[in-house]
Amino acid sequence: MLSKTLIFGHKNPDTDTIASAISYAYLKEQLGEEVEAVSLGDISKETAYALDYFGVKAPRIVKTVKNEVDHVILVDHNERQQSVSDLNEVKVKEVIDHHRIANFETSDPVYYRAEPVGCTATILNKLFKEKGVTIPKHIAGLMLSAIVSDSLLFKSPTCTTEDIAAAKELEVIAKVDVNVYGLDMLKAGADLSDKSVDDLLTLDAKPFKMGGYAVEVAQVNTVDPSELLGKKEAIKTAIRGVISERELDLFVFLITDILTNDSVVIALGEQQAAVNTAFDITLEDDTAILKGVVSRKKQVVPQLTDTLS
Amino acid sequence: MLSKTLIFGHKNPDTDTIASAISYAYLKEQLGEEVEAVSLGDISKETAYALDYFGVKAPRIVKTVKNEVDHVILVDHNERQQSVSDLNEVKVKEVIDHHRIANFETSDPVYYRAEPVGCTATILNKLFKEKGVTIPKHIAGLMLSAIVSDSLLFKSPTCTTEDIAAAKELEVIAKVDVNVYGLDMLKAGADLSDKSVDDLLTLDAKPFKMGGYAVEVAQVNTVDPSELLGKKEAIKTAIRGVISERELDLFVFLITDILTNDSVVIALGEQQAAVNTAFDITLEDDTAILKGVVSRKKQVVPQLTDTLS
Repeated sequence: MLSKTLIFGHKNPDTDTIASAISYAYLKEQLGEEVEAVSLGDISKETAYALDYFGVKAPRIVKTVKNEVDHVILVDHNERQQSVSDLNEVKVKEVIDHHRIANFETSDPVYYRAEPVGCTATILNKLFKEKGVTIPKHIAGLMLSAIVSDSLLFKSPTCTTEDIAAAKELEVIAKVDVNVYGLDMLKAGADLSDKSVDDLLTLDAKPFKMGGYAVEVAQVNTVDPSELLGKKEAIKTAIRGVISERELDLFVFLITDILTNDSVVIALGEQQAAVNTAFDITLEDDTAILKGVVSRKKQVVPQLTDTLS
Repeated sequence: MLSKTLIFGHKNPDTDTIASAISYAYLKEQLGEEVEAVSLGDISKETAYALDYFGVKAPRIVKTVKNEVDHVILVDHNERQQSVSDLNEVKVKEVIDHHRIANFETSDPVYYRAEPVGCTATILNKLFKEKGVTIPKHIAGLMLSAIVSDSLLFKSPTCTTEDIAAAKELEVIAKVDVNVYGLDMLKAGADLSDKSVDDLLTLDAKPFKMGGYAVEVAQVNTVDPSELLGKKEAIKTAIRGVISERELDLFVFLITDILTNDSVVIALGEQQAAVNTAFDITLEDDTAILKGVVSRKKQVVPQLTDTLS
């Protein structure tokens, strides 16, 4: 029986996943538990900016866990396909999450804490209070970064009053101005200058099944959409390649401007017309502007699902 | 859109299920939410004793929910087959539970609070504190009754230090001596005088799949096992009928003495020998004593599953 517990978020880690793993590991250590925060993949530029700013080392990357632990704690996810590949070989002791529950099962009673808020770190902020553990500056900074990231600086419709209240508390402890620090962090993550066209399509892409159709929705954040739109023909060629390779019915690529909070959509595939219906727009040259759309989860996937079902 | 939310526990309701539905409904009402505690079936004698003692009316019984609400809150269970039959037609807003998670899925983020403690009421005791709501005497009495019931007065191996601590707090508010009140309540539930032999086998029976075999484990609590053992031949005949009717490989009937905390087991079926192996005993006339065994969940099902797998 191995006594250590690994704590990790989802594959393709974002700032909430990394910050929440590190923050919850800190809380557990203060309570005398033997834990380690790890990551299931390379961290993003945005996350690297946050870790560097608050002087925290990136977690070790693991591909499997059963060879080193019997128990794990999941943060920021619960669905099996988003987790470590050998999850079935270990016991999930706890889950701290803010997503729907699906494809998740345990054989024994478990500690499961999910709340319908915008960010896992907002729940962790409560847990620190409930356990009476003081949040140090660097942990507050990472938790604040997670809230800024998941809420796009409070602009996303996924952001709740609880997320804003938590951010206000953490801002004081982290000793930053959230609007200045937050925008700098988002901009660091939105730096796509070293990405190939293929990279752009896979950086943050999620597959969905919508009414029998295979749909993929990829999203990138930027401060300069025109830079990407200059490569539109190359992007469209790459999308056509992905569609044919994976036999998709629709590929939706969102270029989200984190300064204006609008998105440009490029859509291709046999079900392309669903995008017109879903957003009440008319694609021209396979492209349109989606005013005020920043959240794939709340403003794109449900609308497309309804149209295609 | 209907504004009210129904709160309920599992089918075949026990004291924790009823007490937790009523107590959580009380908490929600104090927070200004429109809710109603309901039950999915008739209450037991034990639960009736607790409700009567603390002057609380039994909840209304419902068989379906979609005709009256859009949203529900589950307490003391999450597995679909244990819940209301039309659960798929409504949205689960919250779950408060202390069991494993299985056969449960949502399409949206949810408030899910599960902890590996012995009783749902122990978690509710924390929620009252977190929300800053004072627990009145009658609610404390019901929550205490739930802990006594699920822990068999703290004797079950499912009982944790958190359950004991919560019971101590609630005992003060409820103004009872838990050992006196608790034993009276358990005895009220253990009164089997009006039950037929068929009733005994179905009162608290749960089906399991163990290594490909169909197994059913039924349990009754009593203060006088000899009274039941006087009907042993009739019980065995009834068990044989159930085995043939449901094509079971094994039927295990536990008669648990709530005073001595031992159980008598009566086991029949083609896989009867598994009981000898699982508990290191020798059945004589299909019967044996299991010293210190009171919990089906912790002391019977895992052992039988291991033997049959």
